[in-house]
Amino acid sequence: MVIVGAGFAGLSAARALKGSPVDITLVDRRNHHLFQPLLYQVATAGLAPTQIASPIRTVLRDQANVRVVLAEASGVDLARKQLLVGPRSAPFDYLVLATGAAHAYFGHEGWAAWAPGLKSLDDALGFRRRILSAFEAAETACDPAERARLLTFVIVGAGPTGVELAGAIAELARRALATDFRAIRGESARVVLVEAADRALGAFDPRLSDYARRALERLGVEVRLGVGVTACDEGGVALGEERIPAANVFWAAGVQASPAGAWLGAALDRAGRVVVAPDLSVKGAPDVFVVGDLAALTDAAGRIVPGVAPAAKQEGVYVGGVIAARVAGRAAPPPFRYADAGSLATIGRREAVAQFGRLKLTGAFAWLVWSVAHIWFLIGFRNRLAVAIDWMWSYVTFDRGARLITGDDQPLATANAHLAGRCACETL
Amino acid sequence: MVIVGAGFAGLSAARALKGSPVDITLVDRRNHHLFQPLLYQVATAGLAPTQIASPIRTVLRDQANVRVVLAEASGVDLARKQLLVGPRSAPFDYLVLATGAAHAYFGHEGWAAWAPGLKSLDDALGFRRRILSAFEAAETACDPAERARLLTFVIVGAGPTGVELAGAIAELARRALATDFRAIRGESARVVLVEAADRALGAFDPRLSDYARRALERLGVEVRLGVGVTACDEGGVALGEERIPAANVFWAAGVQASPAGAWLGAALDRAGRVVVAPDLSVKGAPDVFVVGDLAALTDAAGRIVPGVAPAAKQEGVYVGGVIAARVAGRAAPPPFRYADAGSLATIGRREAVAQFGRLKLTGAFAWLVWSVAHIWFLIGFRNRLAVAIDWMWSYVTFDRGARLITGDDQPLATANAHLAGRCACETL
Repeated sequence: MVIVGAGFAGLSAARALKGSPVDITLVDRRNHHLFQPLLYQVATAGLAPTQIASPIRTVLRDQANVRVVLAEASGVDLARKQLLVGPRSAPFDYLVLATGAAHAYFGHEGWAAWAPGLKSLDDALGFRRRILSAFEAAETACDPAERARLLTFVIVGAGPTGVELAGAIAELARRALATDFRAIRGESARVVLVEAADRALGAFDPRLSDYARRALERLGVEVRLGVGVTACDEGGVALGEERIPAANVFWAAGVQASPAGAWLGAALDRAGRVVVAPDLSVKGAPDVFVVGDLAALTDAAGRIVPGVAPAAKQEGVYVGGVIAARVAGRAAPPPFRYADAGSLATIGRREAVAQFGRLKLTGAFAWLVWSVAHIWFLIGFRNRLAVAIDWMWSYVTFDRGARLITGDDQPLATANAHLAGRCACETL
Repeated sequence: MVIVGAGFAGLSAARALKGSPVDITLVDRRNHHLFQPLLYQVATAGLAPTQIASPIRTVLRDQANVRVVLAEASGVDLARKQLLVGPRSAPFDYLVLATGAAHAYFGHEGWAAWAPGLKSLDDALGFRRRILSAFEAAETACDPAERARLLTFVIVGAGPTGVELAGAIAELARRALATDFRAIRGESARVVLVEAADRALGAFDPRLSDYARRALERLGVEVRLGVGVTACDEGGVALGEERIPAANVFWAAGVQASPAGAWLGAALDRAGRVVVAPDLSVKGAPDVFVVGDLAALTDAAGRIVPGVAPAAKQEGVYVGGVIAARVAGRAAPPPFRYADAGSLATIGRREAVAQFGRLKLTGAFAWLVWSVAHIWFLIGFRNRLAVAIDWMWSYVTFDRGARLITGDDQPLATANAHLAGRCACETL
């Protein structure tokens, strides 16, 4: 059988089949499993890439029935039961698609060039390069307006990623970078969080949304609710009549499923997700399953399964169980039911919101729960230890360990013209 | 005053002027100081970039007389005493050039595309991506010759960098990756170290050279002495009549100083280094100093100062002292004398060679000295701790913590065609 994608859903499916008499080929276009919930910390120089990613081969080293292949799938031939990988193909009896989703630009795909999204390690390293480069260029900018443009960061979308990103950039500017520059002050950075809905963290209880907004504002973040981005270009963003000049705009809005759904010829929802049967199989192709952010499902209890890591893991484990049962000739498990593990979002140092059913937490205690939960779910003992040490260090020193500008050997001026600072003054 | 370059030499010069009544502008085209001696460990997935690099701003945070500028210098106007940085300029009373050196292709600059050198973090991440990608492609290659080509690594130049790189790749293949693949075995990797001279580690005692060669051979490295590379292209390298098909060739031979020397119109040696006066100033420009790998000097004791980190540091400290003396109106210090701090090179796990004057060490004890020395000289307590923990972990588990392929969002096939594996077989 073949699994495509080694995110939370695909990896869980593979692991659930440990010991089953199946030969699994796990195809991913990257060599590492990524702990996406902490990606924003790599983007803001808090953690290093190695701390939130593990080689897929190492994770599955001891599972003899899995073969890991680094390759990019290009299609599915349902009639012949083959996964297509460029000119080559992999035959399957069962197929599990777990290729995930990205952010949605709602018909403005051209904005992606100016307002990148955050899904991969390379995205995060790009964010880090752009954020740190803007501070560097601002240090030598002599025109106050240009300096302000360089130090303005706009984040579009106030879901957990947008909230965490805005809080982390504000803390980076005000604390970690506070004493490192001579001409600029970290506090002069402007962080704007834009959300089209009327509250942040729409999936949370309104009281927590409100708490998060106030906590962000205490950090100095401007939270703009109920406004949409109407234009986005090299100079910044427009919110209707208002223009915000900004060298850095980051996109954290909407959901757009990966194109794999279209390979199946199955029904897709508006976000491009595959509408799956109660056992997560594809209608008309009972041996093909879709799990994680690529799947659209209302579960047996009538709940819409959200696009979050715990749901992806549960779906992966469930499908692994369905396939194991079929291979063993056992009865199929009952339809999938999502067990809500609660929702967490962090805003900054000792600030988070958490929701577990009726229990709602805010502030330092929520932040502690968030920290422990994220370290717990990180894969690999070494990563857990490294992240725990780093967080304790940062907590005590306010420092950030990963403030490197890499990934772009071009001089700053040619590589990212709009980040280089455009000053008419002669003296450096 | 202006310092260009924040490597060992430039940073030491800046630090030596702490407390002096000078305003220092430190210009570097990267935002981090790099601990180059451990760069090969990033290249071979042993350490993460953050562990061997520190933001220059953070290193000098508490030195109020330094302003750090991220920019690429483009020239020097000696008459006007200005450093040129693109269209802008920085006036100086004293100038310290510390822009370092790269490897030399001896007139075959076109080979750089196929046999990259290792000088920056981006170089190291490129090495890591290429090495790990070759193993990935070999896992799905069906043609034995193609698989062998993918798993052949040629390192040109058996100085410390070449020796350390060859040893580390051999260990990565035979130990860290040993159990991670299904179709290939780590041991089937072929590592070839090519050196034009008749021994490895030419700067060391011949007995240590011989020890290093045998230690490399015990690790499975083919050491080819007294042969030069006559061609280098997509398919591999030629050593005279012999062709070695190899997907990865790495260059660690020769020294070519950075172009900054030519800005001064001063005498350069064959490697492009500036021939400096006994006080490291430039002849005819007593306020301009050259330090580190960019300087060519026979010191007051008649010794040729080698292009190594301790020499660069000593030169930086010395020039800082010269400038401090002039500013204070004190007498100039005596001419520069290089204090040989000894030479160290590691080959692999519990294998190194060390030379301190007449004292020569090999094997496990030399390796321990090497480990302690490198951790000691790493900048920043946190980096020291992180590296020490990582090394202990790797020692116990044989694992490598940084096995991520990043920096290239293109699918492998289009990005590095010669690394993608060219197989005619249909099945993946």
